[in-house]
Amino acid sequence: MERKVDVAIIGAGSAGLTATSTVRRYTDNFVLIDGGELGTTCARVGCMPSKAAIQVAEDLYRRGAFAREGIAGGEGLSVDIPAALEHVRDLRDVFVDQVLAGSIDHMEDEFIAENAYFIEPTLLQVGDQQIRAGKIILATGSKPIVPRAWEVFGERILTTDNFFEQEDMPARVAVVGLGVIGLELGQTLARLGVNVTGVDMATMIGGLRDPEVNAAAVELINKEFPLWLGQAAELSEAADGCVRVTAGEQNVVVDKVLVCMGRRPNLCNLGLDGIGVRFTSRGVPEYDTHTLQIGQFPIFIAGDVDGDRPILHEANLEGRMAAYNATHDPVVAFKRKVPLAITFCDPNIVSVGASFETLQEKSIVVGEMKFGPLGRALVMNKNKGLLRVYARKADGRVLGAAMIAPKGENLGHLLAWCIQQELNVTDLLKMPFYHPTIEEGLQGALYDLRRKLDIQGEIPLELELL
Amino acid sequence: MERKVDVAIIGAGSAGLTATSTVRRYTDNFVLIDGGELGTTCARVGCMPSKAAIQVAEDLYRRGAFAREGIAGGEGLSVDIPAALEHVRDLRDVFVDQVLAGSIDHMEDEFIAENAYFIEPTLLQVGDQQIRAGKIILATGSKPIVPRAWEVFGERILTTDNFFEQEDMPARVAVVGLGVIGLELGQTLARLGVNVTGVDMATMIGGLRDPEVNAAAVELINKEFPLWLGQAAELSEAADGCVRVTAGEQNVVVDKVLVCMGRRPNLCNLGLDGIGVRFTSRGVPEYDTHTLQIGQFPIFIAGDVDGDRPILHEANLEGRMAAYNATHDPVVAFKRKVPLAITFCDPNIVSVGASFETLQEKSIVVGEMKFGPLGRALVMNKNKGLLRVYARKADGRVLGAAMIAPKGENLGHLLAWCIQQELNVTDLLKMPFYHPTIEEGLQGALYDLRRKLDIQGEIPLELELL
Repeated sequence: MERKVDVAIIGAGSAGLTATSTVRRYTDNFVLIDGGELGTTCARVGCMPSKAAIQVAEDLYRRGAFAREGIAGGEGLSVDIPAALEHVRDLRDVFVDQVLAGSIDHMEDEFIAENAYFIEPTLLQVGDQQIRAGKIILATGSKPIVPRAWEVFGERILTTDNFFEQEDMPARVAVVGLGVIGLELGQTLARLGVNVTGVDMATMIGGLRDPEVNAAAVELINKEFPLWLGQAAELSEAADGCVRVTAGEQNVVVDKVLVCMGRRPNLCNLGLDGIGVRFTSRGVPEYDTHTLQIGQFPIFIAGDVDGDRPILHEANLEGRMAAYNATHDPVVAFKRKVPLAITFCDPNIVSVGASFETLQEKSIVVGEMKFGPLGRALVMNKNKGLLRVYARKADGRVLGAAMIAPKGENLGHLLAWCIQQELNVTDLLKMPFYHPTIEEGLQGALYDLRRKLDIQGEIPLELELL
Repeated sequence: MERKVDVAIIGAGSAGLTATSTVRRYTDNFVLIDGGELGTTCARVGCMPSKAAIQVAEDLYRRGAFAREGIAGGEGLSVDIPAALEHVRDLRDVFVDQVLAGSIDHMEDEFIAENAYFIEPTLLQVGDQQIRAGKIILATGSKPIVPRAWEVFGERILTTDNFFEQEDMPARVAVVGLGVIGLELGQTLARLGVNVTGVDMATMIGGLRDPEVNAAAVELINKEFPLWLGQAAELSEAADGCVRVTAGEQNVVVDKVLVCMGRRPNLCNLGLDGIGVRFTSRGVPEYDTHTLQIGQFPIFIAGDVDGDRPILHEANLEGRMAAYNATHDPVVAFKRKVPLAITFCDPNIVSVGASFETLQEKSIVVGEMKFGPLGRALVMNKNKGLLRVYARKADGRVLGAAMIAPKGENLGHLLAWCIQQELNVTDLLKMPFYHPTIEEGLQGALYDLRRKLDIQGEIPLELELL
């Protein structure tokens, strides 16, 4: 006996839950299926607990500014790492409860705590029952990648899945992979007093694609813990059950290795092969990024499982897009948001809009601002960093930016919103820049662009006729 | 013998210096006249030293979050106020040097270190010489208001003019006037351990005009030091040369009184009466806010002296507007920026766009967001505050906002830029909101507006068709 629904949503993470609440606008006849641990990647092991840990580390690290400010006693500060981790878990539990209270806690037989398997493109095996769905939303998320050969190191290997469950941190940790998560947690551990070594076979860190911002970022972060870049890490056993991490000619013995080599979409045991879904070379189903439809199947993919933009606000948007298309005919194409990627290290690393390597160097001009002389940054004792804004040479249109900057997360929003509105350098210079704020750093980059683009006007660019 | 110039600029503060550099684009024949102490209000006694002091106080205050984060030793922190003030002066000197190095240090006989007096609308007495100017820019700034009757208290009275010159702070200070400066410095002193009492005859603080945000602000700030609102302060002598401050039925004996009752335009001894300039009831020359022309005189007013928008970026803009009109015929009218006012207390108090009391309650809808449950604010242990966004009922156009909010200065920029572009609630909801950020607080207020405005759409508002 089949249960018939209009829409089946597989996965109750951020994308699946947002899809569910959007589907609900259009039909009551749906199911949400998830056989795993409840709570989103974001709340359980991602954005939220990492931000909580970062905040503790930043607060402790701030003592470096105390002496010059006339504050005594900074050298007497210390962190109780088990207590800090407990605090992180306390906050995490609040966030997980918030997520569940707003969603699954109120669902009855619409929620099924089982795994799903595709029998046909519209027929799912879910535990003992079969569900026939008009449309299906695939939102099964992702999990941390750990090379199979490293599984022998057992508990010596940390990923975000178990990091926040640790009772304590050991004295020596290697962080392998210095993208967003590796950089955030590596810097956090270093600031909490752990001896951290960072390793990445790439030479760009924190998801950067701009070589100059990357150079500034490497220089800044490298002062806090060593970064070994451009060589793959190899792991081997050392004395006392410790692990030797080797990268090129360098090696170090550590107690644990935090593996942050990216995340793999959860696509196993779903039966997608059996129904004829085609996969890209990166191992994700072929789908349209504007409709989220997988091939011509009545299946829509949303969230981290699609291997693109693995961040919460994009997962939520994809959940909405998938839900709309799963409840409407014909399928429609949606615009995507201006890309915004933030690494919440200190200073923040941010990429906005068009990525530097996708731009033709001849057709753009880059406006730069170093944060060294910026008044407010100096007052905050955070006058370190570099902002680069890319504008089209032809018309001054702002296309993208990359930065390592104090309050970069906020500058990133400003820039993303302006880029989404297709504004140009002159438009931005007419906006109010309060003094003294970090936003004046953006103003500095815009003035540099004005100079390099040789934008002239009889009237000063900051002004506009009534 | 008259010296003839195209433009004479009176006052070498922020507005005058910006005017000078703009005038220079159009003519070499100008003079800049200032007989007072060099360096701008902003750098010497305003924005910059106050931000430096606020930063010290915030860093010390942050110890309140340490225990829950697992950081020990916070109770051992203390501030050496003389050292902190020395640090503030060190930074101030850097900023003053920056200002002068970029302007007056490079001027020769274009700069005259004398006071100016109007003999005719185009003829100035400047020390021993007379200067005939085609156009004149009046940018003489302002100074703190102290009631004449209080002058008898001599050194017991502090204003921003002498505050940062103090070697130390006494145990007990009353702050009279709780606008931007009073609130910033009052909270700073309280956090540094001074026993502070705040007094204001108004009931709104920090320049707020929104009663609900004000109520939230009063409640928050009042936890740090007592606010006596709605009663004028009266000063009288107390024992040991101390000062008794009385407001209604309350009174307190303090060592010093920090007077922050606003600033008075510097208009004395300029001879403006003699050439027939008319003054408003507020004591400033009658002028057009879009041309900055004083009546039909060849005189343009810019900066704090005009009694409007006494903040640096507006002073700079006015300097440019005045400079353009002083070098071009006919006079043109410029648009003004969207108003943005920030009090850098913690949380920030911010007003943007249309002020609440100027809006017809029937024609607007107010979207609210409390920062209590906001994830990032919770992580930062700064989950306190209220944001109210005003939108036009007819079309959802965002008109203004007021808030007491963590990172309010950054939210203020986002909102100001959107308001300047005349965006509506739906436009804003389509922008990327990264997670977890304080910008999601704005998103919450926008969702509240969507609900109250009953904005419906077949497609979720966050999405846009390609």
